[in-house]
Amino acid sequence: MKVIVNIQLKNGVLDPQGKAVHHALSSLKFDEVNDVRIGKQIILDIEQSDKASAEKRVKIMCEELLANTVIDDYTIEFPTC
Amino acid sequence: MKVIVNIQLKNGVLDPQGKAVHHALSSLKFDEVNDVRIGKQIILDIEQSDKASAEKRVKIMCEELLANTVIDDYTIEFPTC
Repeated sequence: MKVIVNIQLKNGVLDPQGKAVHHALSSLKFDEVNDVRIGKQIILDIEQSDKASAEKRVKIMCEELLANTVIDDYTIEFPTC
Repeated sequence: MKVIVNIQLKNGVLDPQGKAVHHALSSLKFDEVNDVRIGKQIILDIEQSDKASAEKRVKIMCEELLANTVIDDYTIEFPTC
């Protein structure tokens, strides 16, 4: 089963990487861009039969390793296709 | 308008970061994990009124800057909420 974890910096936490990309986009004349936030997308392939237990296990993985819960927010989703 | 760009390495391209996280998860006894792929999720806030032109512009941004189209695949989506 495939599980997708999206990790983004919490609102209010400065995102220097996003600022750099925003600056680069402006220099390429993409002036319609107001803000850029960059995070991680982790795709896990796990040996689990049902979604509920998969979600529970992945939540623990996020809390213990994948996300820095002080500065990151994370969401867990299952691909539709 | 918010636009989400998900960038992942193409299949077949080695993902050392993913391998390292997979190894760390195994050492934390998450043995049900078969594979880990790590990519980027970029959230753009852009000044655009309709989705079609926003998607067209973001596609150009991906081709020119955000994604390395030799080794990366990217998808463009609009948040539902």
